Parts: sequence; structure tokens; C-alpha cells
Amino acid sequence: MLSEFSLIDRFFARRASALPHPQGAALGIGDDCALLAPPAGEMLAISTDMLVEGRHFFPDVDPKALGHKALAVNLSDLAAMGAKPQAFTLAFSLPKADADWLSAFSDGLFELAGRQGCELVGGDTTSGPLNLCITVFGSVPPQAALRRDAAQPGDDIWVSGTLGDARASLGVQRGEWTADATDAATFRRAMEWPEPRIALGLALRGIARAALDVSDGLAGDLMHILERSQVNASVDADALPRSDALRRLPADVQRRCTIAGGDDYELCFTAPSTLREAVVAAGQQARVPVTRIGTITAPDPAGAVSTAAPMIVWHDASGAPLTLTLQGFDHFHAE
Amino acid sequence: MLSEFSLIDRFFARRASALPHPQGAALGIGDDCALLAPPAGEMLAISTDMLVEGRHFFPDVDPKALGHKALAVNLSDLAAMGAKPQAFTLAFSLPKADADWLSAFSDGLFELAGRQGCELVGGDTTSGPLNLCITVFGSVPPQAALRRDAAQPGDDIWVSGTLGDARASLGVQRGEWTADATDAATFRRAMEWPEPRIALGLALRGIARAALDVSDGLAGDLMHILERSQVNASVDADALPRSDALRRLPADVQRRCTIAGGDDYELCFTAPSTLREAVVAAGQQARVPVTRIGTITAPDPAGAVSTAAPMIVWHDASGAPLTLTLQGFDHFHAE
Repeated sequence: MLSEFSLIDRFFARRASALPHPQGAALGIGDDCALLAPPAGEMLAISTDMLVEGRHFFPDVDPKALGHKALAVNLSDLAAMGAKPQAFTLAFSLPKADADWLSAFSDGLFELAGRQGCELVGGDTTSGPLNLCITVFGSVPPQAALRRDAAQPGDDIWVSGTLGDARASLGVQRGEWTADATDAATFRRAMEWPEPRIALGLALRGIARAALDVSDGLAGDLMHILERSQVNASVDADALPRSDALRRLPADVQRRCTIAGGDDYELCFTAPSTLREAVVAAGQQARVPVTRIGTITAPDPAGAVSTAAPMIVWHDASGAPLTLTLQGFDHFHAE
Repeated sequence: MLSEFSLIDRFFARRASALPHPQGAALGIGDDCALLAPPAGEMLAISTDMLVEGRHFFPDVDPKALGHKALAVNLSDLAAMGAKPQAFTLAFSLPKADADWLSAFSDGLFELAGRQGCELVGGDTTSGPLNLCITVFGSVPPQAALRRDAAQPGDDIWVSGTLGDARASLGVQRGEWTADATDAATFRRAMEWPEPRIALGLALRGIARAALDVSDGLAGDLMHILERSQVNASVDADALPRSDALRRLPADVQRRCTIAGGDDYELCFTAPSTLREAVVAAGQQARVPVTRIGTITAPDPAGAVSTAAPMIVWHDASGAPLTLTLQGFDHFHAE
């Protein structure tokens, strides 16, 4: 059995120190604290996420994919802020110290970290039920940060990439619906290897107003923008971008997966309608498709500040209203 | 059953926003990321710790004490760096959303956070086996940081407070030894309510050379300073400070608890012998006793850089050498 310290050293500290250090933490792994500062005039954007076996991933998950995803879901929060990745800490508990598992996990983790220039600067390991907690640090000029509270009536609503494939994968694994092997593999890849939209977040600085990443399902997540910005929204459910594989599932499954799926890690953002060309250009620059799905509307017809909960009016491609009872993914609700 | 979001809101976000915000995060809970910056010319000191039920605390732990301790062990890392607390994030998984438990837990957490001026700026909650992961942020001018790699031959070695009470409590609970009710309560309080030595860490800026916090037992932790600084040490085991309660346990138990106990959260630091009065004054200013326990020695008699592992030479009050096989607390070893 490996000791805690040799574990850290073997799989993480050594690999971390072998990477280039583009962001130059003054002090990294091996002291009581890491020392980090944002570039002059910028702030650190900080986000933390915890992944639990059986809740966020299956016990038999490919450990390399898990290493990727654990960091990816955190980087996705930086992307949603328009922040540039700088560093991360990793704390995890493991039932046992399995060298093969740790090696594969760290492969997935460091491949993404290296690609995004994100340096491992600290961590903690302990024995216990499998649990991964990553905290990421990015840099952003405060006035360029893509916040949730900046949406304005008249803004277009956009999403990146496609929605629903991760939820489709879960449904295949649960037997809720079926797909052929190729489509099932497409879905599974979306669930296990989400790609954080860092380049898009950076390209949207100065263009997008409000943004977040879609992690708990579009319906629930978009509500966070509406609540913080005190606005409403009108969304075309038929405009939600989806993969060809998802289009081969029944229409009601497509709707469920795209609207309330969860685990998408795409950006949902608003931008003035005068900047449509700039949004499309940002997507091209970041090599990520962007799709316009709706409009931010005033909080109520009279224009007064409403105290009621915000509202999403869903409609189909013909403009006919839809009544939806789908909820965002909520960790304390059975689905 | 409370939903994830109402949970966060009820117990944490609302309490966080009710606190004064001395450090002024530009953006806290409720967005994809918090935005934080150190004061001009300083850096952020960052540390993360994960606490797991059954490993770091008992299932029947007082939740208020747990809330305190979860933050305290992280603040202790800031203290060991000479950093001033600024903010923290909290991620945790819980088997169920129990309002009484969460209320008591947050009481313990926010009492300490408020006292130390440390603002909750973000978090994540999920269902799962009980696990707490806190990441803390403090500020420190980089040249004033108390690092592990700065010890020099001839430095005195000091520790704050007393050692061993937390380990004594564990032994009482395990039936390894017995204590009367008053002493047992003293031990238990040390284990459950450690006080991070923030004020001492700040007072030691410019005085101490190397420092760390004793969390895994003095023997193991001091080795980290020796390894990073490439030096050896000579330590008087009889000089290790201990409580009156611990002095009433057998001599061999006292030795085991003070040398290899774990969970002490005192500072162990080195300072030039010319600065003894300044160290004592720093302790008085911080209202924490400080005790000189040994000396940093050269890596080998010839003065060449040694490639061998560093060494602690233990002796008793008479100067007679001790042979110790006690190990620091290691999470992947059975004790």
C-alpha cells in the first residue's frame, strides 16, 4: 500500500513539476500554501466543484475520462466567466491507493491541464469513499467578466455546441431508451469527455453580457441568469442545437434531453442583438458553433421591477407556446 | 427534502451575505466564479483540505464543532504561511439534507469565519457520503511568506501552544488509555476545537524563517521542513510543550502523543537564535505560548550538500539520545 505522501509525489507532484509553468505560481506543491497572483489589473476567478461516485459518475468509469472530466467541469466555470485558466488544486478521497487507477486518472487530468495551461499548485489526498474536489483559478479583468446579472431585455440568448447528448447517454445506460452502438458511443463521449469552452469564453469578452455554463440542464440554469438579472426570457425549444445522434431519438426524448438534461458544459449567454455578427465570429474564432435560441424580455409588461419569480416562455418553431414541467437537474431530488 | 439550491441559500449564502465583507470580494456566491484579488504587492496564499467521516472525525461529532474544525484546519495552513485570511470556498457532500445538522454546522463555520475576517465566496453541495472540502485564500507579501524551504543551520526550532492533546483524546475514545472526565474533556476540546494560529503567523513575519503547521504529528511534519531546506535537526523530546492534563498520562503516552500525535494545528517554525526575544514577543503579542524545542543542524558534518534523507536526532532533557520508531500520522497506513 502506498503512503499518502508517496502517492501524491508519484502521481501528481512529479507530473505537475514536469509541466511547463506558463502562469508562474511563486510557490506550488510542497508547502503549506501555494502562492498565486493574477496579472496586474486582473482578478482571480475562483470556482470549486465536487464529484461523487454514484452521483456524478459510475463506479466503473474510465479513470482517464474521470480525470479529464473532474477538471473540465471546473474549467467550464472559468469559461462561463470569460476567465483564462491559471492554476488548480485537487483534493480527493480514495478507497484504496491503486497505482493503475491513479496513473490513468492523472493522465486524463494532466492532458487537459497541459492543454489549457492550468498548473496544479496544491492538493490533499485521504482514504475514504471516492470523492474529487477541484478548485480552479483563472484570471480576468473585472470589467470583462461575464457575470450572471448582466442580461438586458432585448438581448439574444445563445448556446454553444449541442445540448442533451450527456443526458441521452444516461438514458441509454438506464434503459430509458435505446440507441445503436455508434450513437450510444457519441452520447457516452459527450458525457465522459466534455470540452470546456475556454476559447469561446475569452472570445466573448466585450461581446456577451451575461453567461453561465449549462451543467444542470438549460431550463434550470437559464433561470439563474434571469433571477440575477431580474428579467424574463422567451426560448424556441425547437432551436436548441442537438447532435445528429440525438435527432435519431424520439422527439419527446430530444426535448427532455436538450431542455433539462444536465452535464452539457456548454455556455449559455446573452448578447445585444446588434452584435450577432460578432458572436458568430467569436464562435468561429473558438471553433465552436453558436446558436441563437431566444430573447431576454422585460420583467413585466408595465416595465416595473417585478418581485415575482422570473419566467421562461417556451415555444416551438411555429411560435406556439409549450407547457413544460421539466426541472433542472437537482442533486437532492430523485429524477 | 430540501433542494440543493435552497439548501445553499438557506444555510450558507444568506449567512455569508449577512457578514461584514472586510476583504471585499468583487463577486461572491451566486455566479459561476467568485472574483478575488490580493492587496497590491501581495499574493494569494491558497490551501485545500478534505475531511472525511470516519477518518478525520467520528460520525457522532458535534456538527458545530465540525463546522469550526473544517475551516480551522485550513486557516492553520494560512497561519503557517504568515498569511492573512481573506476568503474561502466550501464544497461538501451529505447523505441527507438535515436542517438541524446544517444549522449547527454553519454556526461553527461562520463563527470562526467572522472572527477571522474570512468570507465565504463560493461552494458546491451534493448528496453522497459525508465529505467536506474547503479551500482558503489569504494574502501575504511574497517576501514575507513563511516557507518550508528557508530553515538554516543554527536556527532554533519552536512550536506554539501544546502538542498531543488531540491524540490523547483519540486514545481515550479508543480505550488505549484512560483519563478522568475533566482531562478527557480537555483532550476532546483540543481535538474538536483547534484554534488556527493566525495572529502568531502574522506576528512572525520577518522573524521566523521556515514554518509549517503540525497536523500529522511533529516528527513527520518537521521532516518536511528538513527535506525542503536540506538540513537536519536536533530536538529535545522532553522540551515538547504539553498540557497539565497530558502530564497526568504515563510518560510513554506523553511522548507518543507529543511526537507523533497529529491534529495539533500548532505552528512549528525556525528562527535565527539572535531573534529569541523577538519570537517570545511575537508569542506574547499573539497571546500564544511559544517553546524552543531544538536546533537546525547542517546536512552533514563535512558541510557538503547531502543526498541522503534528512534526519532528526532526538534526545531527552539530559542530552541522552533516544531511538524513536514513531511515525507521523499517515492516512494510508493503519496506525
